[in-house]
Amino acid sequence: MREVAVLGVGITQFGELWESSLRDLGIQAGLEAMRDAGIRSDEIDALFVGNMAAGRLIEQTHIGALIADHAGLTERNVPAVTIECADASGAAAFHHAYLSVASGLHDVVVVGGAEKMTDLPDEEVTEIMSTSLDQQWEAFFGATLPSMYAMMARRHMHDYKTTREQLAHVAVKNHAHGALNPKAQFQRPIRIESVLGAPAVAEPLGVLDCAPISDGAAALVLCSADRARKISGGHVKVAASAQAGDTLALHSRGNLCAFDATTAAMEKALKLAGKSRKEIDIAEVHDVTTISEIMAVEDLGFVKKGEGGRAAESGMTALGGELPVNTSGGLKARGHPLGATGIAQVIELVQQLNGKAGKRQVKDARVGLAHNVGGCGATAFVHILEAV
Amino acid sequence: MREVAVLGVGITQFGELWESSLRDLGIQAGLEAMRDAGIRSDEIDALFVGNMAAGRLIEQTHIGALIADHAGLTERNVPAVTIECADASGAAAFHHAYLSVASGLHDVVVVGGAEKMTDLPDEEVTEIMSTSLDQQWEAFFGATLPSMYAMMARRHMHDYKTTREQLAHVAVKNHAHGALNPKAQFQRPIRIESVLGAPAVAEPLGVLDCAPISDGAAALVLCSADRARKISGGHVKVAASAQAGDTLALHSRGNLCAFDATTAAMEKALKLAGKSRKEIDIAEVHDVTTISEIMAVEDLGFVKKGEGGRAAESGMTALGGELPVNTSGGLKARGHPLGATGIAQVIELVQQLNGKAGKRQVKDARVGLAHNVGGCGATAFVHILEAV
Repeated sequence: MREVAVLGVGITQFGELWESSLRDLGIQAGLEAMRDAGIRSDEIDALFVGNMAAGRLIEQTHIGALIADHAGLTERNVPAVTIECADASGAAAFHHAYLSVASGLHDVVVVGGAEKMTDLPDEEVTEIMSTSLDQQWEAFFGATLPSMYAMMARRHMHDYKTTREQLAHVAVKNHAHGALNPKAQFQRPIRIESVLGAPAVAEPLGVLDCAPISDGAAALVLCSADRARKISGGHVKVAASAQAGDTLALHSRGNLCAFDATTAAMEKALKLAGKSRKEIDIAEVHDVTTISEIMAVEDLGFVKKGEGGRAAESGMTALGGELPVNTSGGLKARGHPLGATGIAQVIELVQQLNGKAGKRQVKDARVGLAHNVGGCGATAFVHILEAV
Repeated sequence: MREVAVLGVGITQFGELWESSLRDLGIQAGLEAMRDAGIRSDEIDALFVGNMAAGRLIEQTHIGALIADHAGLTERNVPAVTIECADASGAAAFHHAYLSVASGLHDVVVVGGAEKMTDLPDEEVTEIMSTSLDQQWEAFFGATLPSMYAMMARRHMHDYKTTREQLAHVAVKNHAHGALNPKAQFQRPIRIESVLGAPAVAEPLGVLDCAPISDGAAALVLCSADRARKISGGHVKVAASAQAGDTLALHSRGNLCAFDATTAAMEKALKLAGKSRKEIDIAEVHDVTTISEIMAVEDLGFVKKGEGGRAAESGMTALGGELPVNTSGGLKARGHPLGATGIAQVIELVQQLNGKAGKRQVKDARVGLAHNVGGCGATAFVHILEAV
């Protein structure tokens, strides 16, 4: 397998974008990525799109073909595909786009993620997101993503003395980061009292513990590292991309406080990249709720199980800390347009590793990690990127 | 890229399977494929699933994870992904599963397709299938798949003097083939008068010109040809797998009587396989309506444009003819559970090339072609398989 580089990135504003359709957003991100990469559309060999739920959210399937059509790629009959792994769909599309270049099948591909969620009532969107759980044995009986994570939070608090305040620290940190990201849905800092006092979604999780409902799209241009080298002096390479799975149903798992899929994907990714955890400078993790980030930091092995709450509280995972986590604002503050999230995470790494992250730049960041979860932990992806 | 072999196949009955859920069907097909391949579940490196619309049909996304879970693959954290290209989702899953083995990334993978369509009223299913069209500019205004194909049929009849009877011959032929396939949804021959007299769906197409609404699943085990050689004397190899795209919207195309995506995918596939059309012994093509098969036979270059109707009428494409097409019964008679169709097509080729197609066996078939279309021609796949 040959080395693969990220040649360009593009991302829309995340938020409630009522004036833009999904195709508008997809094309906006895609064209920005192509401009950033300095490539023309006739150089693109294939398009990969991550999307979870457009079939219900906007009654449109065949999203790969939709974007390819409106990006003008159909004149050359460029193949386009949609890849779905619940809200890890973006990471899944990245994984397969990466493999298509690494294997030598394609030379230049565009991989994007997009979702348009704010055209329906919130209750319906919550129900649609819950289709990523086991519908027959869990969601049908009323389980939703926040209620599942609330159970994990309760168990984590019980087993490891994680506090309500520690959960809140994750939200406060990620909003502080989001305030430095002009593309983030929420660009205002929040206080810990606001998180603690916010209306409950599923106790102990309140509104400010949960990622918002978002519209947005993000795109990357990938090519062989050889090609990237010819174009510029330095680039960001994909050091590893790994996926692992777990039971779809939460009730089938032995442990409510850990995602085995995350741990397995991390082990694979480190092995593929030939790196140790200590070499990771920054991480974008799947903070769909505050407990999700706490568990992710533990399951990825950055701290011991049970110490994720303290990592947020102590500032270890904040900008300026030992391992800045979710410098983009994360799902919590940047926003979480399901299929776009996994691509937006990689974009944050690329911008950081290229020294182009503006006010939220982490000094001397060389190696970054992205962690994207599908549903309630049945799917996990870990990608490692490196500046070379 | 290394050579890839099909090691085993499994397929459920297609039809109205009210006692079986999608997960039941997926696992039934998958386990049959594994038994046929003689492999254990701990030898599987990854699972690829083709599914178009479970998010709406059964309110379950994350189908890859669902099947992996219930097949017991999650103990080893095997990665699972869902791939969607409308009703070419099965072919798309096959394409990416094939590439994952060809590139050396995986050694043994299972690729399946599944759909559960009969739990909703027909009108709703028709609407869900129409999400594969351009929702904003076509489906929203009432366009459905059959009405689009009806326009193509009218134009084909106008431009090439294709007759209503020639359309009907496709259905009669495919029902005759389906009568020889114990897994087909319709196993009874029909007369041309029945097709002509059937209730209209979208004139000139009647009920017997259109593929039915179906439940079903199909699965394949793929591995490197080296491995297959060690296990058995002969095997079926994947000689080529190619994809091409076209505009999503029918109104953007220059020609209503041809799918450019089919032609482009065919050219790519022949080049990859190093074969000419004359070497193809059998073909499974996307006969979602009778006009679809006529256009497919033309667009694939087996006859000149405009002669597809005569090909059906003359018996050229029937069992015993020069090029038997849809010996399985095709989408029309075998059934069309969207995501399963592309896999079922490949299974028919494997059974024919292995000499295991029972009463519908084509003598000395060595090379077969599968052609699967997404929506109204925005996506087309062509795979070529060969007995070695």
